[in-house]
Amino acid sequence: MKNKKVISRIVSLTLLFLCSTINLFAQDATISKFSSILEVQQYDRAIHIMAMLLIGFGFLMVFIKKYGRSALTATFLLVSISLPLYFLIHTSVLFGEAKSEIEELILAEFGAASLLIAAGAVLGRLKMFQYLILGLLFIPFYMLNEWIIIENGFGIIKDGFADTGGSIVIHAYGALFGLAVAMSMTTKNELEKPIEADATSDRYSILGSMVLWVFWPSFCAALVPVEAIPHTVVNVFMALCGSTLITYVLSWKIRGKINIADIANATLAGGVAIGSTCDHASHPTAILIGVLAGAISTIGFAVVQSKQRKLIKSVDTCGVTNLHGLPGLMGGFAAIFVVNGLNVSSQLSGILITIASALIFGFLTGKIISLFGHREEAYIDSEEFMDAEE
Amino acid sequence: MKNKKVISRIVSLTLLFLCSTINLFAQDATISKFSSILEVQQYDRAIHIMAMLLIGFGFLMVFIKKYGRSALTATFLLVSISLPLYFLIHTSVLFGEAKSEIEELILAEFGAASLLIAAGAVLGRLKMFQYLILGLLFIPFYMLNEWIIIENGFGIIKDGFADTGGSIVIHAYGALFGLAVAMSMTTKNELEKPIEADATSDRYSILGSMVLWVFWPSFCAALVPVEAIPHTVVNVFMALCGSTLITYVLSWKIRGKINIADIANATLAGGVAIGSTCDHASHPTAILIGVLAGAISTIGFAVVQSKQRKLIKSVDTCGVTNLHGLPGLMGGFAAIFVVNGLNVSSQLSGILITIASALIFGFLTGKIISLFGHREEAYIDSEEFMDAEE
Amino acid sequence: MKNKKVISRIVSLTLLFLCSTINLFAQDATISKFSSILEVQQYDRAIHIMAMLLIGFGFLMVFIKKYGRSALTATFLLVSISLPLYFLIHTSVLFGEAKSEIEELILAEFGAASLLIAAGAVLGRLKMFQYLILGLLFIPFYMLNEWIIIENGFGIIKDGFADTGGSIVIHAYGALFGLAVAMSMTTKNELEKPIEADATSDRYSILGSMVLWVFWPSFCAALVPVEAIPHTVVNVFMALCGSTLITYVLSWKIRGKINIADIANATLAGGVAIGSTCDHASHPTAILIGVLAGAISTIGFAVVQSKQRKLIKSVDTCGVTNLHGLPGLMGGFAAIFVVNGLNVSSQLSGILITIASALIFGFLTGKIISLFGHREEAYIDSEEFMDAEE
Repeated sequence: MKNKKVISRIVSLTLLFLCSTINLFAQDATISKFSSILEVQQYDRAIHIMAMLLIGFGFLMVFIKKYGRSALTATFLLVSISLPLYFLIHTSVLFGEAKSEIEELILAEFGAASLLIAAGAVLGRLKMFQYLILGLLFIPFYMLNEWIIIENGFGIIKDGFADTGGSIVIHAYGALFGLAVAMSMTTKNELEKPIEADATSDRYSILGSMVLWVFWPSFCAALVPVEAIPHTVVNVFMALCGSTLITYVLSWKIRGKINIADIANATLAGGVAIGSTCDHASHPTAILIGVLAGAISTIGFAVVQSKQRKLIKSVDTCGVTNLHGLPGLMGGFAAIFVVNGLNVSSQLSGILITIASALIFGFLTGKIISLFGHREEAYIDSEEFMDAEE
Repeated sequence: MKNKKVISRIVSLTLLFLCSTINLFAQDATISKFSSILEVQQYDRAIHIMAMLLIGFGFLMVFIKKYGRSALTATFLLVSISLPLYFLIHTSVLFGEAKSEIEELILAEFGAASLLIAAGAVLGRLKMFQYLILGLLFIPFYMLNEWIIIENGFGIIKDGFADTGGSIVIHAYGALFGLAVAMSMTTKNELEKPIEADATSDRYSILGSMVLWVFWPSFCAALVPVEAIPHTVVNVFMALCGSTLITYVLSWKIRGKINIADIANATLAGGVAIGSTCDHASHPTAILIGVLAGAISTIGFAVVQSKQRKLIKSVDTCGVTNLHGLPGLMGGFAAIFVVNGLNVSSQLSGILITIASALIFGFLTGKIISLFGHREEAYIDSEEFMDAEE
Repeated sequence: MKNKKVISRIVSLTLLFLCSTINLFAQDATISKFSSILEVQQYDRAIHIMAMLLIGFGFLMVFIKKYGRSALTATFLLVSISLPLYFLIHTSVLFGEAKSEIEELILAEFGAASLLIAAGAVLGRLKMFQYLILGLLFIPFYMLNEWIIIENGFGIIKDGFADTGGSIVIHAYGALFGLAVAMSMTTKNELEKPIEADATSDRYSILGSMVLWVFWPSFCAALVPVEAIPHTVVNVFMALCGSTLITYVLSWKIRGKINIADIANATLAGGVAIGSTCDHASHPTAILIGVLAGAISTIGFAVVQSKQRKLIKSVDTCGVTNLHGLPGLMGGFAAIFVVNGLNVSSQLSGILITIASALIFGFLTGKIISLFGHREEAYIDSEEFMDAEE
């Protein structure tokens, strides 16, 4: 009788155990499936970012006269050198902790984006192989800054730094780095002969601009947790709508007529500036940030650009200061007012370190690149490409 | 002894309770993860739709001579005004019930698509700020119709209305609205001087067309339940293949030679027409609907367009009547024969209300826009843009 | 007392049973949801592939002088004829086993890709309706080869054949088929008058090339199990980076100056060649395969192409031998060294059967197409299109 009870108890408990174990196993499998599914969703965003890098940045830069082939080929080369290099350095565990493969791909793409921004400042002033040298030097410097700011390298930035979509570490860093390269390389002659735009390439530029606009939410939300993605992406679109509308108004009002280059560029300033706060801002705040960024950028292109050239004795070919530099910094500062629980001193330190390291390493990089050749005038396609327009 | 049993029973039941509770919690977490994952999948489709709006519609409209910059800038502005406006009105709970953020984004994109279609009818006849006024007026009218037809506003359309991909409420509404705007604005002079196409921009138009073609399944399946998506998207591709093949045949046979504008436009009619039945039709039916729609559209462009101009005394710049109007209505009627359980009177009422409200509000909108200026000839880029071709 | 115990036992076991049953039901629902979610993720890749087919291949082929409209329209027609045809043949269960709708869509897209490659070899030599005949003949032959190689048709290739991303059955098959069509059709006159490239269309070609580059990982990973996707897609990008860098170096070094057509084409050779091993190679191996493929392709375009013309008395308009043929075969052979557990004799048989059937059926197809007309010179747009450049 007692045995019977014991046996029945054992059977009952065994059943209980089995039942819950099976469920746990099933849940383990479920969780592992979940993480695969989430990684493939990240992959979709990684593809969107890649479209921004090649097609977006590439065609946005096809506006210089007789330099279309060079701009597109340079884009191809800059992306192709930076992705494997980022993986190589990251895998050698020089910087940061291990990541999933898709996260690493996305981080490498962020580096490539920052590099393309930097290259925009000196577009037309380098030979093809010099773009490769720029890439080889830029990526380690970029990763150093990323490691210090995001991964608490050297223990300086402890926590509470907000820059989800990279206003500071991607956009401002790239723009200031590029500006410093330009400052260390621009010759007197170049200052006097500004690069001419190609009137017939406006539609290509708008194509590049639209590709960037459309996929920008995937850039900002690339590494955001799945449940925060909807709010983030709507914010990014709101900011872009804001900068697009104000760009039209200001370009028209300041210049008298609309400038198509403003439309191609300053419309994107909202995406640059919302980066730091894209997962925290409310929708109206996102629109406001977009409007401010678009205004700063349009005023930059329409009023400041020619003065800047004289002031810092440098030519910024694509105007990356106005599109990525100032709006990026503005976005970084905006986070102080928008993000709850943000550590103000972390945020300010992060911004300052980014500015300083971008300028210093950029200037150094410019000097190194100059060792491989340095010209008095901008290059044109026919110097390096067959059958190109003279 | 008795205590022991009681305790053992309590322990056993507690274990049982814990085990099932943990599982329930885990399942709750699973379900909530699921809904996040599904929302991010919707987001991917929202991005595809955004590519259609800016790059697709934008470049499809770059075919008017000396009007490329204006067409692309207008696309930027129309999208940027309509998204925040849709959110604002929707959030103020003037129309419809609360939605998830991504669903709201997709609905706002649908509104922007309908607006771009309407704008296509009057392309070249408005100044930039007038496109903004068009957007500000269109969106509330569009939302009113959407609320009546889809959300049973006023209790008119109770159930059984089929229009998953928006053949009626998006395409036909936009086209008829635009046509009515054109009717209330077109001057005698414009009727005599048709807008000239730009011969060199054919490849841009095809680019826009291809972007629309490729991403169309995401448009139709945007809000379809996850398990119905595969069948829906294959149907959309089948319909597009059907309209593409028939467009080639009829353009060639009717005109003697193929017209590249037919290829850029009528190839898409299958996507327009399959909207109402995309989740219900069989694949062969989808092809048939595509072939019919492509035929109607090509005949519209090749035969009817010049007669239409005289008949209704209006110029439809982009031929939206032929691409979105007639194929949209045809798709709406096709649902009566294709969709099981459809309420025929709901379907017919929905179509009639859409036609009436589009024409009435469109005409009204045209009159309001005319208050802000009204010209005898089409605009060209150089009137509003710097450095543009005279 | 005993009854009480029995009842309590029954209650307890019933609870246990219910608890586990509910969980099992929940898990069933979970599993079915999972498979829907995975299918929608495949759908996202199917859309990426469609962008490659229309925009990628279409614009890559817009480089022939006065043939832009024809190239784009042919792309539209070839895709539109092949998708429904593939579904029709597959549904008639002539080839292979039942698939999910999205898998079938992806397989149909693979067929369309191979067809577009084949068409590239004879671009400019067919009238529009002849491209349709090419499609009608190609798809059944392609499906026969696919069935033999992938689905063990006739019991020849038992297992261990590695070609996940289609280096052999898609790329090499299409290229060799097209080459054979060209061989059976090329006239003496055509051999002497090579097709002229259009200098102003280089940016369109690069656009097509970039679209292919960006979405290539989705092509290779389209049918890969969810957990293998991250590694696969990173491999594809690594291979593409490798071929892009080497293409620049060799184009510059072999020709003296960079050739933009090399950049548009040979940069993609890494994607072609990594197909067979994309889910097995390590990242460094993927880069190596990309570099080798890019080198083979660039040397093919820069050195071999003119000799090839004389050797096999045929003109390969788009150089598909160099872009898809040789790199595809190289990728197929590379699998022998890279993939563990690969059956070498299966791999070699698969490659040989593919080569043989592509050449035989391609030659036959060329003869059949010739029955519908055969010209001494390449066609230009104005022969079939209205208002085209004479």
